[in-house]
Amino acid sequence: MKKLINNPELVVDEMLEGFVKAHSQYVRQLPENKRSIVINRETRPGKVGVVIGGGSGHKPAFIGYIGEGLADGVPVGNIFASPPPDPILEVTKAVDKGTGVIYLYGNYAGDCMNFDMAAELAELENIRVETVRVTDDVASAPNSEIEKRRGIAGGFFVYKAAGAAAAMGHSLDEVVRLAKKANDNTRTMGVALTPCSIPQTRKPSFELGENEMEIGLGVHGEPGVERGELKPADEVADRLLNTILADMPLEKGDRVAVLVNGLGSTPYLELYIMFRRVSQVLAEKGIEIYRSYVGEYVTSLEMGGCSITLMKLDEELAQLVDYPADCPMFVQK
Amino acid sequence: MKKLINNPELVVDEMLEGFVKAHSQYVRQLPENKRSIVINRETRPGKVGVVIGGGSGHKPAFIGYIGEGLADGVPVGNIFASPPPDPILEVTKAVDKGTGVIYLYGNYAGDCMNFDMAAELAELENIRVETVRVTDDVASAPNSEIEKRRGIAGGFFVYKAAGAAAAMGHSLDEVVRLAKKANDNTRTMGVALTPCSIPQTRKPSFELGENEMEIGLGVHGEPGVERGELKPADEVADRLLNTILADMPLEKGDRVAVLVNGLGSTPYLELYIMFRRVSQVLAEKGIEIYRSYVGEYVTSLEMGGCSITLMKLDEELAQLVDYPADCPMFVQK
Repeated sequence: MKKLINNPELVVDEMLEGFVKAHSQYVRQLPENKRSIVINRETRPGKVGVVIGGGSGHKPAFIGYIGEGLADGVPVGNIFASPPPDPILEVTKAVDKGTGVIYLYGNYAGDCMNFDMAAELAELENIRVETVRVTDDVASAPNSEIEKRRGIAGGFFVYKAAGAAAAMGHSLDEVVRLAKKANDNTRTMGVALTPCSIPQTRKPSFELGENEMEIGLGVHGEPGVERGELKPADEVADRLLNTILADMPLEKGDRVAVLVNGLGSTPYLELYIMFRRVSQVLAEKGIEIYRSYVGEYVTSLEMGGCSITLMKLDEELAQLVDYPADCPMFVQK
Repeated sequence: MKKLINNPELVVDEMLEGFVKAHSQYVRQLPENKRSIVINRETRPGKVGVVIGGGSGHKPAFIGYIGEGLADGVPVGNIFASPPPDPILEVTKAVDKGTGVIYLYGNYAGDCMNFDMAAELAELENIRVETVRVTDDVASAPNSEIEKRRGIAGGFFVYKAAGAAAAMGHSLDEVVRLAKKANDNTRTMGVALTPCSIPQTRKPSFELGENEMEIGLGVHGEPGVERGELKPADEVADRLLNTILADMPLEKGDRVAVLVNGLGSTPYLELYIMFRRVSQVLAEKGIEIYRSYVGEYVTSLEMGGCSITLMKLDEELAQLVDYPADCPMFVQK
């Protein structure tokens, strides 16, 4: 697969160089490590630090979400690979304002190991760290083993909720409670149509037939739950939505935030056609869409397909969703 | 090529239905025509109306740019096809506040014909209409025939400049002067790697070899100026940038706004690697990047590749670039 890159081994560092130059009013690289990216302004003393992260290749996640009302720092990994403990620890120290730091990331073995190690090292330096792992991917484990699920596009809602809570001045315990609540009320189901490829190999991350789709395929190409013929958009949307609603039942009068997320190469045209069906189905059930997000929020390089995320809202979560944010790749007034 | 759609004949209308539902706080469909989209709030009496438009398939252009500080209305065409005069006239009447309306669109035969017809019909109803055609695509005609050039991603800067000028309260003559100035100072060069396909045929819009690129290929698949082996990103960026700088010479101390625009399926990773080289080259020449935009601003469905746009700034244009905007698919604080 063709790519506009130079040396495949340098893609992350060259991307970061471009990113920081393009958005220097928002972000900076720590002098000790160019993979350690933090907000480029003084945050309020006593503000809880919000650190999100994981592998590269998912932009806007994660560095695109550094800014007011969202994350304070991101340790950057290689393509689809967790950052090691060093940049995590460095970012932690840089964003701690004496009240502790929350780690938020998708539930993947490599991320869990590295962020846990960094948390231990931070505690040795008297920085309190708490962790909330994102587990929104319904396809990745049954409801009875919900803590084993992977984190995908719904992470955006969890990061936004925690970022807003921290910006509002809440304590670390309270930010953790709200991030967990956001995660507990968020469900995602995705569909893949075409693969991506990592720069080192340029080989497709999976193979699908000319007219095939795969439901529940993971953002790094992890196997999904069902492969079959590509159906019309409305049928696909129904399939994704029904799985979410079976897992997280909603009642008439409930309110949700909706995210229809493009995986990388899916035209906005198709995302809005998917959103149309989501809004029809929810309207039929008497469920109110409180806020809508349609676009690329968590991608997998040039993968084709999309995901649907619902976050069930109460007053508290609605307030966090509404809170403004100002980041390089996401601005909400 | 696989698509998440229902009936290919209905993609535009179904997309619009989803779009308006997702962003009802920003936009509405006129009751007389669902292809006529206008801002969903009362604009200030006496404000010049800003109408942008063209074919579908270029999102965020054009409907994603309806909002404060940008456009007031968009007549929507079929995929890659100009809207007919009817929705243009309807949008014109809806956004006119007694001080006239400016039409802004890419310089394509179909758009010119239909917008000119609508302008004549509007004049019959005593609405003054002025037109500025976007001609930023350096590859599409030589400098000696600059008025024949097509409009591509640089249109974003022209729409933004005119939208800001109108929001500031300038007269139609002044908005026209500033839009022309923005267009005269904007140049774009693009490179395509992979084709898109329109929903009706699902056939690739052009063919390129496994390791080929085409410089200057148009957003609807119009032939470019050079086809050859895909080069490293830095070489491609140099090639695009040198062509722009030969066409619009810049001097040490000049200031520019930069847009690195993804055509649809190009990962952000690659766009930032391209931006990195642009920033290096401009720094070497002593040219200051005043503002940077990296992402998808004018796409061609799932086409692969990107374009580089420079707008040369004086105080007046810098002010327009800085002016805030609040649209469904573009927010600038």
